[in-house]
Amino acid sequence: MRTAATATDGTGAPESRHRTASHNPGYVHGYSDRETRRLTDQAETLAALLHAGTAYPAGSRVLEAGCGVGAQTAHLAASSPGAHITAIDVSAASLARARERLAARPHAATVHWQQADLTDPPYPDASFDHLFVCFVLEHLPDPARALAGLRRVLRPGGSITVIEGDHGSAFFHPDSAHARAAVGHQVRLQAAAGGNALLGREVQPLLAAAGYADVTVRPRTVYADATRPGLVDGFTRNTFIAMIASVRDDALAAGLTTKAEWDRGIRDLRRTAEEGGTFHYTFFKGTAVNPLE
Amino acid sequence: MRTAATATDGTGAPESRHRTASHNPGYVHGYSDRETRRLTDQAETLAALLHAGTAYPAGSRVLEAGCGVGAQTAHLAASSPGAHITAIDVSAASLARARERLAARPHAATVHWQQADLTDPPYPDASFDHLFVCFVLEHLPDPARALAGLRRVLRPGGSITVIEGDHGSAFFHPDSAHARAAVGHQVRLQAAAGGNALLGREVQPLLAAAGYADVTVRPRTVYADATRPGLVDGFTRNTFIAMIASVRDDALAAGLTTKAEWDRGIRDLRRTAEEGGTFHYTFFKGTAVNPLE
Repeated sequence: MRTAATATDGTGAPESRHRTASHNPGYVHGYSDRETRRLTDQAETLAALLHAGTAYPAGSRVLEAGCGVGAQTAHLAASSPGAHITAIDVSAASLARARERLAARPHAATVHWQQADLTDPPYPDASFDHLFVCFVLEHLPDPARALAGLRRVLRPGGSITVIEGDHGSAFFHPDSAHARAAVGHQVRLQAAAGGNALLGREVQPLLAAAGYADVTVRPRTVYADATRPGLVDGFTRNTFIAMIASVRDDALAAGLTTKAEWDRGIRDLRRTAEEGGTFHYTFFKGTAVNPLE
Repeated sequence: MRTAATATDGTGAPESRHRTASHNPGYVHGYSDRETRRLTDQAETLAALLHAGTAYPAGSRVLEAGCGVGAQTAHLAASSPGAHITAIDVSAASLARARERLAARPHAATVHWQQADLTDPPYPDASFDHLFVCFVLEHLPDPARALAGLRRVLRPGGSITVIEGDHGSAFFHPDSAHARAAVGHQVRLQAAAGGNALLGREVQPLLAAAGYADVTVRPRTVYADATRPGLVDGFTRNTFIAMIASVRDDALAAGLTTKAEWDRGIRDLRRTAEEGGTFHYTFFKGTAVNPLE
């Protein structure tokens, strides 16, 4: 769940962070300080939910494909002491941020960083015991091909873990057509950039089509209401609404909405984080193995 | 998740089953054999998901408000041996079905049946130790008032359990505007009959507003894909799609859709239960207590 927004570094100059070699204008994540903070908040709040059940043995070779600014890498490293993690991303700027983040946290895993295109991983066949792919497929124009390409570098019998959100799972109280429209604009912008903000529901068929076996996908649902203020703040407000709010300029530039309509949508979304409001979102976590010949 | 459909007994003559004293034309559940089978399938498939964590001590007095044809009563009775269950419904026909169902299953709870309007329960204050309300609030024009009225007959310190679905949580692969429209028509019909098929998201604020304390609501999410054929069959096909399909005549009579559009929507929904399809739905289960004075 990274945004398809044009984030800026505060100077007004957007800097791209492309996950694939193809050029996706407006596809920028994790670059500005604010965006880095947002991704950090998100990762902390969601870590227990998303990473539960994921730990790799000491000595195992793990490829994190599309590590971005390292938000998930930090959790992988913490939960898998002794693992040899290779974290790749196509963006040098993101890798620099990720490296900083990990340097600031003590952890017992080895992390090797490499600038590389995950759709064409520069490794011999069967180089890894495990693959970890989180909030990445949603940004790729051809996720099926990416999964198949990654399978080449996974040893037979090795595992893949995929985590994706699905904005179609976002519903809330009070309901609001304006709020739903704002979410829909983010979905359209991400689609226009070659991504798919509704990808979570496709994780199982994508893994199966890419030739993985023993595919198991389960929902990991976030539900926040007034009795869970930490989750309201960490997820509803600082993760989901912040992500939608960040595409304001793009939505206006694309002519998808007016300022008044957009602002009404964001205001209505914020009401779901107030007393009496509720918010629901489902992530999908899939695991599968590369079949033995 | 009972339907707002006009079910028939096979003779074409619809028979009403009203949960409240108000007259809601077209509001019929659990009457025909087919509908009874559907509700049974649904209860079996969902029982583990929805009833997990619900068991009442021997000797405790439990009111099931709105028991319908007894689909949930059977599970309550099985999981709470020794409990004294009072199951009420406004429909004599449904109660007769429920009684038959329970008679066919050995269970160690006492079940007392009573025809009564749950919005005005005919019991002295504090008559019960526990309340159980499942797939009922979604049919009531004023669920907040019903919850407050039920609180009167719950002893201070006693518990309430509420389970509701939310059709806004239904999303699927392959996505389809026609399929989404069909679900939307069911939501509109239920709203026109005074109900709310999107009620799940409101369980927490409703319980809080009705004066209950220690409100805890959690999502119970159903996710079905080709790797879970039992759930695809039991939930996607025989529960959810069957429920939507059952409102066909009402949707056409109300002029919400055309035959061609409707049939396309149902066909597209059925594709989500085939190889490569996925289906997501979230129920909400809430518990709370009647505060001590």
